[in-house]
Amino acid sequence: MHEKNLNISTLLDYYGNMITDKQREAMEYYYNEDYSLSEISEHLGITRQGVRDNIKRGEVYLLELDEKLKFSEKFQKVSNLAEEISSLSDNIRRVNLENSAITQIDKLAKKISEMSETISKT
Amino acid sequence: MHEKNLNISTLLDYYGNMITDKQREAMEYYYNEDYSLSEISEHLGITRQGVRDNIKRGEVYLLELDEKLKFSEKFQKVSNLAEEISSLSDNIRRVNLENSAITQIDKLAKKISEMSETISKT
Repeated sequence: MHEKNLNISTLLDYYGNMITDKQREAMEYYYNEDYSLSEISEHLGITRQGVRDNIKRGEVYLLELDEKLKFSEKFQKVSNLAEEISSLSDNIRRVNLENSAITQIDKLAKKISEMSETISKT
Repeated sequence: MHEKNLNISTLLDYYGNMITDKQREAMEYYYNEDYSLSEISEHLGITRQGVRDNIKRGEVYLLELDEKLKFSEKFQKVSNLAEEISSLSDNIRRVNLENSAITQIDKLAKKISEMSETISKT
């Protein structure tokens, strides 16, 4: 089984509607709630091996989907850009509070415009 | 067949890897290149009816996928936010050029921060 990591949780969030209910339930318990296979087995009323199979098959499919659709890559890019935008606007505020360097403020604001255009094209 | 519109082109862009090569080729000619069914038929070496079937099936599947995954909705939201960010930063530049109202600049920059946080959560 895949290492428990944030990545699978994210894929589950993006593509969860594309797998079976059993697969999704088992994976949510495992990755989001940190249940053990035995605990999930009890909850879902299927064998421990059944739980393992559902998680494994769901994982393989989610990874395949993301390989084709690349949405985690796209959203990561958006998220990184947004962080930069946030940091830039913090800079604007700092410069502004210092009440100097007007051309600097203009440069920062221009950069924000360019970045948000990039977001639009993502 | 679906009306020729931007929407299907966008779905093709997002989910094109999920349909067959024939479906994708036929749809790209039809929606992106504005070829007629007869022209596509010649290009792909399949009957006009075959072209129609490929486009129709591809369309149905793309619409189903988007219904489940809702990526066009998500990206639309990101795109709208980015436009607002861009407009806000234009405002900062204008206010800055007018060289007045420092608290106004601060408010605008704060708004940019909040919006980019929203983008991160999309």
